[in-house]
Amino acid sequence: MVLAIEWLDDPRPAIRLIDQTLLPGTEQYLDVRTVDVLVESIRHLVIRGAPALGATGALGVALAMVQAGDESWDAARLEAEIDRIRDARPTAVNLAWGVNRVRGSVPSGIVSVLRLARQVVADDEAANRQLSRHGADWILAHVAKDKVRVVTHCNSGALATSAWGTGYGIIHELHQRGRLGLVYADETRPLLQGARLTSWELLQDGIEHVVQADSAAASTILRGLVDVAIIGADRIAANGDTANKVGSVGLALACQRAGVPFVVAAPSSTVDLTIARGEYIVIEERDGDEVLFFAGLRTAPAGARGFNPAFDVTPHDLISIVVTERGVAETATSADPDLLATIAGSGKGSNHQTGRRDGRQEEMA
Amino acid sequence: MVLAIEWLDDPRPAIRLIDQTLLPGTEQYLDVRTVDVLVESIRHLVIRGAPALGATGALGVALAMVQAGDESWDAARLEAEIDRIRDARPTAVNLAWGVNRVRGSVPSGIVSVLRLARQVVADDEAANRQLSRHGADWILAHVAKDKVRVVTHCNSGALATSAWGTGYGIIHELHQRGRLGLVYADETRPLLQGARLTSWELLQDGIEHVVQADSAAASTILRGLVDVAIIGADRIAANGDTANKVGSVGLALACQRAGVPFVVAAPSSTVDLTIARGEYIVIEERDGDEVLFFAGLRTAPAGARGFNPAFDVTPHDLISIVVTERGVAETATSADPDLLATIAGSGKGSNHQTGRRDGRQEEMA
Repeated sequence: MVLAIEWLDDPRPAIRLIDQTLLPGTEQYLDVRTVDVLVESIRHLVIRGAPALGATGALGVALAMVQAGDESWDAARLEAEIDRIRDARPTAVNLAWGVNRVRGSVPSGIVSVLRLARQVVADDEAANRQLSRHGADWILAHVAKDKVRVVTHCNSGALATSAWGTGYGIIHELHQRGRLGLVYADETRPLLQGARLTSWELLQDGIEHVVQADSAAASTILRGLVDVAIIGADRIAANGDTANKVGSVGLALACQRAGVPFVVAAPSSTVDLTIARGEYIVIEERDGDEVLFFAGLRTAPAGARGFNPAFDVTPHDLISIVVTERGVAETATSADPDLLATIAGSGKGSNHQTGRRDGRQEEMA
Repeated sequence: MVLAIEWLDDPRPAIRLIDQTLLPGTEQYLDVRTVDVLVESIRHLVIRGAPALGATGALGVALAMVQAGDESWDAARLEAEIDRIRDARPTAVNLAWGVNRVRGSVPSGIVSVLRLARQVVADDEAANRQLSRHGADWILAHVAKDKVRVVTHCNSGALATSAWGTGYGIIHELHQRGRLGLVYADETRPLLQGARLTSWELLQDGIEHVVQADSAAASTILRGLVDVAIIGADRIAANGDTANKVGSVGLALACQRAGVPFVVAAPSSTVDLTIARGEYIVIEERDGDEVLFFAGLRTAPAGARGFNPAFDVTPHDLISIVVTERGVAETATSADPDLLATIAGSGKGSNHQTGRRDGRQEEMA
């Protein structure tokens, strides 16, 4: 199994990333040894995917400590560098969550931090496998088909996580149970994570699939060609509103019209109970040139401007279920305001400290 | 003004096309003198857009007659070649309509056919200008904004028509009235007609706009960034269901959710009263490689398959109005089964003879 992210001790400590900007053409690994390179790697999507960013945040704190030792940073500098990692991308809650999960142990030293960070990675894989079982169980109980045909958007597979995948993990689980039909993978413009990454993972796992333009997804759903839509998530608000790769809400609208279940899959760390509703989620707007150029070639005329929101927010009433390793919440059909709390991280209400509401860091539960 | 299609008499008869596959990088014209080249040009989208295909069909009959004279075809061969033009693409009704509009005059000779075909071209421009006035009037009566912000999909401009444009024509009309805000142009994968063609026309007309990924359209609408969605059409069924470039129905679903008007603009020849509902419209499925490659570069891994429907069908209840040169039909809010007849082509019920229902050619009204 390919690992999107891995900690190396020898010969020198490093975070090893597979460069996802070069896939599927080139399988190249990057050993990251400085905060600068790590932040650039996060911004340029060498590593991406909410749960993988959680692992990146946690391991990133350890990396910053190593660099602090090499370069004799004081405590304030180290804190500032850790903040840079935390803030490298705004939308996925997991990046800040991963950083915050371990930074409290910085005074205890690198060994403690690294042990905690490795636990974050191990917990992520375990959570993904568990949520995939929950998700597959729910889908098979609600879709009366021998082979379930799936549409998915962007990449929520092993490359987006520490291992196994979230939305993709459910697809993989259905495949292992012999209950998977054809998979429709949206290519996911502008950066083609679906065509480049999801299709690559599907081929590796021997799963029959087609790649379609994102704009085809709605009609594929309306024409009755799929039985369920499954996506990952970058941040899930307390009411179930979900930020995910731009284009996700289009699938959800078509699913509602067609009566097709729409499934959001994520580890419980993606549920951000400190954010009441989706409208408060900060949506990252990326460089417009990502839309205007492809492989260095201009697709629009010189002088054109690009508009490039990286995420959108799917309102909870369009989401059939949110599934985490803690279970399934039937978002669309329940009026329980604490519904998400049952599948969010442990603790009273929240296990994150994103500090996004008021800029203040709260103590983790 | 750029002409997508034009008849040349000198030095030898030809149909001159601007090669839309090369825009915006290269402005190159192709003088077509044989049915073979014309059919290939239609299939490879050198010329595209429903109204432009109407002109192509009409002028194509004249071209076939010239070639028939040069190569001494008998009447049966000429009929067969005209049929090939008519059937070069299945979804746009206008191609068959344009052919059928003039082929009845073949026995009267090339001068008669060419006069009729040129009338088709002239009528198309006049229709586009008229429907644009109707459309702009309706929008300004229903959108309480000084400057109306628009989202559009694919290209429905001068390049898609004989001149002026349909959906784009309304945008142009709003601009001329000083009532246009920012335009969001979907890039329109896989062939990027929005990024390549619509953005090019918008720049030429000095209209402020941004190009966005198709997948961003739904959230742009849901976030309240646009006041109206305006698209063209390839075929409109008798009940108002509309086939247009794949992705159109995704905009319509978001518009319904956001309470934003969704406007379909087309000449009356696009209304096909012989087709009762959208489910009977034949949807062209194009080569999957159009999704898997860009400018010769592979975007998905070797071994991946593409799924590439070129059009989708927007159900009439999601369409606020269909506007033709004959006026506006408020599709979503009317239960009148003959609603579309009032804005369709003249004659009792239909002015087309597509023959798609039973393969039989009917007499035109």
